[in-house]
Amino acid sequence: MLSNRYPVFIEFGDCDPSGIVFHPRYFAWFDASVHALWRSAGFSLERLREKYGIDGIPLVETRAKFMAPSRSGEEAVVETTVTAIHRCAFDLHHRLLKGDEVAVEGFETRVWTALDPETGQIRARPIPPDIMDLLSGR
Amino acid sequence: MLSNRYPVFIEFGDCDPSGIVFHPRYFAWFDASVHALWRSAGFSLERLREKYGIDGIPLVETRAKFMAPSRSGEEAVVETTVTAIHRCAFDLHHRLLKGDEVAVEGFETRVWTALDPETGQIRARPIPPDIMDLLSGR
Amino acid sequence: MLSNRYPVFIEFGDCDPSGIVFHPRYFAWFDASVHALWRSAGFSLERLREKYGIDGIPLVETRAKFMAPSRSGEEAVVETTVTAIHRCAFDLHHRLLKGDEVAVEGFETRVWTALDPETGQIRARPIPPDIMDLLSGR
Amino acid sequence: MLSNRYPVFIEFGDCDPSGIVFHPRYFAWFDASVHALWRSAGFSLERLREKYGIDGIPLVETRAKFMAPSRSGEEAVVETTVTAIHRCAFDLHHRLLKGDEVAVEGFETRVWTALDPETGQIRARPIPPDIMDLLSGR
Repeated sequence: MLSNRYPVFIEFGDCDPSGIVFHPRYFAWFDASVHALWRSAGFSLERLREKYGIDGIPLVETRAKFMAPSRSGEEAVVETTVTAIHRCAFDLHHRLLKGDEVAVEGFETRVWTALDPETGQIRARPIPPDIMDLLSGR
Repeated sequence: MLSNRYPVFIEFGDCDPSGIVFHPRYFAWFDASVHALWRSAGFSLERLREKYGIDGIPLVETRAKFMAPSRSGEEAVVETTVTAIHRCAFDLHHRLLKGDEVAVEGFETRVWTALDPETGQIRARPIPPDIMDLLSGR
Repeated sequence: MLSNRYPVFIEFGDCDPSGIVFHPRYFAWFDASVHALWRSAGFSLERLREKYGIDGIPLVETRAKFMAPSRSGEEAVVETTVTAIHRCAFDLHHRLLKGDEVAVEGFETRVWTALDPETGQIRARPIPPDIMDLLSGR
Repeated sequence: MLSNRYPVFIEFGDCDPSGIVFHPRYFAWFDASVHALWRSAGFSLERLREKYGIDGIPLVETRAKFMAPSRSGEEAVVETTVTAIHRCAFDLHHRLLKGDEVAVEGFETRVWTALDPETGQIRARPIPPDIMDLLSGR
């Protein structure tokens, strides 16, 4: 399955008055890591849009487990892996690692979408075969 | 159970290039809504610290479902409710409402913690009886 | 001159490990206050775009003075006033007030822009007369 | 004078519905670059606190000029240089560079502070001689 590592340096401004990362920042890093995953496979969101006419790859569900806090000045890596590919959606697993320690784990489901030209609404669309191949790391 | 409503106005700067709320912002609003819940019961985090010697009420797990996107200029309310009280932790349910529509749902577990004076580590602590009462809305 | 007040509640997540507002948040509130200023005059950015064909009202320069720190749980108001109107730009003054105390002051210049259909570049455009009137509070 | 380069990758989540960087993010990067500047000289904020008993190095004034917008996926560098050293404060100059292009310029003044043990208030303190040397790049 497609996988990528995205380095994160924890800045002072990422932390809250408890001195630890304010947890919404983890979701921003997971999101950045998904963009990096696409880039690692040769695609920006822009190029995905142009080539496949999609209207973004929105998150429909996310979950995170916080095992250890992180502080300003620490270095981490978000390891992101595709874990399942469904007809119109795919699952991702994120692990924020500090050395060998898993500090935060994230799980998310994203949907392949297109704009319905008739209704103007976004709706789920089948993932194209070559994107299926790409996500599965073939 | 203890419950509160926290109003959110969706600002331009909360949204991403797709024109919809960048999802980490929802977690920031859920967090703010938990602080508002404590305030509604007469407690700031500061006062909780002073009175109970806790070291914050960290999130150990969170989950969110994104049902409908939101855009700059929209008004919403985060409705936050305590849903379960465990020995050292409690669960919360958030619903970001736009009128009657539930746009985002969040579920989280937070732990009552104290600093262990011997090891200097944070560890879970039993929730005091009066906080149990407060969380259960008694 | 056009003027508006935008209330700000300072959340835990707006503050950094020093326990005070992480200063980039002030610029987010100033920006939100400008959007509120337009809304107070009957305009969303969307409607300004539709009616005048502008491509946003970008900031070209900003300056801020930090007089007093602010902390989680404090209430403030951003008072935003148009201070000068130029041919293609206008100046704004922000004051973040806590009661009568001015905690932060901001000064900014924004440019009225349009997309040049020939070059595809953004360029400054004269502010339309009715917008001039609106900004001057007539 | 002390100087450092801090790389920035512009993420999707750093940008607003106009598709360009939401300007408060630039101030977060400038702040991160100041922390990197201290680290490049062998100091974390934590170590500065321990060694000199300071209570942070707060920003008292900042100014920025936005020359060119930046978009998701672009690479930039913040070049930060100490430009003046006063008795209790120092000035910094930031340039966000994309290749040779200066996209954003920032200017700021930070104050060396300590907690007054009598009043409990923060007040400006003379910069110690060795920090003067360090800032001047000697």
